[in-house]
Amino acid sequence: MPVRVAVDAMGGDHAPAVVVDGCVEAARALGPDVEILLAGPAGDIEPMLRERDAGGLSIRVLDAPDVIAMAESPSTALKSKPRSSIHVGLAACRSGEADAFVSAGNTGAVLAASVVVLGRLAGVSRPAIIGYYPTIRSFALVIDVGTNVDCKPEQLVQFAQMASIYAERVLHREHPVVGLMNVGEEPGKGNDQAKAAYPLLESAPGIRFRGNIEGRDIMQHAADVVVCDGFVGNIMLKLGESIATEVPRMIAGEMARQQMSEEEKAAVVRALKGVASRFDYQEYGGVPLLGVNGNVIIGHGGSSARAIRRMVEVAADLVREDVAGLITAAMQPSGTPA
Amino acid sequence: MPVRVAVDAMGGDHAPAVVVDGCVEAARALGPDVEILLAGPAGDIEPMLRERDAGGLSIRVLDAPDVIAMAESPSTALKSKPRSSIHVGLAACRSGEADAFVSAGNTGAVLAASVVVLGRLAGVSRPAIIGYYPTIRSFALVIDVGTNVDCKPEQLVQFAQMASIYAERVLHREHPVVGLMNVGEEPGKGNDQAKAAYPLLESAPGIRFRGNIEGRDIMQHAADVVVCDGFVGNIMLKLGESIATEVPRMIAGEMARQQMSEEEKAAVVRALKGVASRFDYQEYGGVPLLGVNGNVIIGHGGSSARAIRRMVEVAADLVREDVAGLITAAMQPSGTPA
Repeated sequence: MPVRVAVDAMGGDHAPAVVVDGCVEAARALGPDVEILLAGPAGDIEPMLRERDAGGLSIRVLDAPDVIAMAESPSTALKSKPRSSIHVGLAACRSGEADAFVSAGNTGAVLAASVVVLGRLAGVSRPAIIGYYPTIRSFALVIDVGTNVDCKPEQLVQFAQMASIYAERVLHREHPVVGLMNVGEEPGKGNDQAKAAYPLLESAPGIRFRGNIEGRDIMQHAADVVVCDGFVGNIMLKLGESIATEVPRMIAGEMARQQMSEEEKAAVVRALKGVASRFDYQEYGGVPLLGVNGNVIIGHGGSSARAIRRMVEVAADLVREDVAGLITAAMQPSGTPA
Repeated sequence: MPVRVAVDAMGGDHAPAVVVDGCVEAARALGPDVEILLAGPAGDIEPMLRERDAGGLSIRVLDAPDVIAMAESPSTALKSKPRSSIHVGLAACRSGEADAFVSAGNTGAVLAASVVVLGRLAGVSRPAIIGYYPTIRSFALVIDVGTNVDCKPEQLVQFAQMASIYAERVLHREHPVVGLMNVGEEPGKGNDQAKAAYPLLESAPGIRFRGNIEGRDIMQHAADVVVCDGFVGNIMLKLGESIATEVPRMIAGEMARQQMSEEEKAAVVRALKGVASRFDYQEYGGVPLLGVNGNVIIGHGGSSARAIRRMVEVAADLVREDVAGLITAAMQPSGTPA
């Protein structure tokens, strides 16, 4: 039986065209092992599939006539538009019609709707979103970069456990190393939250904790999994994204100041391009929302067809590797359900 | 009467030679308007001054025979070594023999000793350290980047007020714009601390609050003064420092991968160098510790003679502009001392 991935056809700045393109690409690449359920207004989506000659592909449409705008309030949209593509896609996951859900729509809406519709996995205190941070070696996973802006130390431990499972099963990192985001290396360092989290991380099962890491350590790949609350994670992630836009701007100013020749400028631009792509979220496709009772991948609003395709692939991996099942098991180390 | 700046001759990785060099440079540049009081073992420092032909310069030695190592615990060092250069320099400030203190020594030790020896300014809840963050335009001031890892919202307001005074008087930024570090632009966003700080900043006197700013906004110079607790500030600052080391490493890897010619590599390195210098703390010299009852500039351990010289200049500006007096006045908006 194929893995069935529901995709939010209306999610993203370039939806639905780019989403349909990405799904067609994914279906061509993945073949019958994956069935794509495209959630969106059938009257719009079906002609688009015909235009793209998608007749023989493993794609079908889940009719979802309501549309949530990027700027709409997540909390009200969910209630007022029960037949939105987000809701229909998630409802398919809950009913068992789909195994995973993928969206490049309003992150807040997808996150809120996922928690409401799917609920949390047993024992999980707070679902969390992973962010990718480029490093000298590859990239690190930062968790949480979502809405958990005030966290209890125990929640940081769960983040570490969930992200370690994802890193190991989906990204194939063997024994991923966990670092606690902090202001110094020594165990006694940090704010109240970090000081309390340190000993809990030290004794937590299922993770390989290496201790505190500092701001300068992330890009040096001091850890595969970087644990922090969503306030710190969100700030770091957006700071990192701005490296890819602001450093090239600074360099452009420098090239003008130095009156570089066209050949020299071309060389600089070429070198920068290779590095900037490492900061490009499209390479990663999307990020998992871990801890909900289901498999959810959330993409950037600006996702390209390639990014949508990557998101479908990663969603299928989440299902095949049973990441949700492994997280549930990790949350009950003593065998007692929460 | 000259401004008298006490300098920790033993502070920094290359002390005392580099510190003495920097003081000689400063004395030559600043002339008799500034008197430098070099705190260190007189038996070591005096011959060094003679070697550098400093006889006619406005420099004298404050004998401080005890030496605190970079790795020593700040709290124990202060007690066990009362005649260290840090203690002697700060004691000169307290007694009125000096107007300011400059050190590139152990930051924790200097910070702790400054608070203990000088005390806080009336009304100041927590002294704080400013960090410089390079932006597309110039640089932003991040406050706190020090030890205030858990902060009350009221303390963030004081940070904003203190840094605004420093930006205006010492850096000559007219009406510096204050931004609250947060995860979204809207007023309701953030963790409990940020949500509570927002309305307080809105109504605080003496600052120009523009609202929340996000991680991606700092390098775009969305604010002159970026307010956050020392946990977030320290992580951001170190992340920023690592841009200057890790991005060039990534680019070097990219140049090798692309098999660039020597000429092309030279162009890339030249362009990078101009930008990397913006991330170089030596350009800024040192950072002020605001809110203590005195004028203190703390430098990086690796400070060069040029950085030491800049620190002396900035310390003299702190004194001339009466930053401490202006901060004290700002802390008592209603005329009631705290």
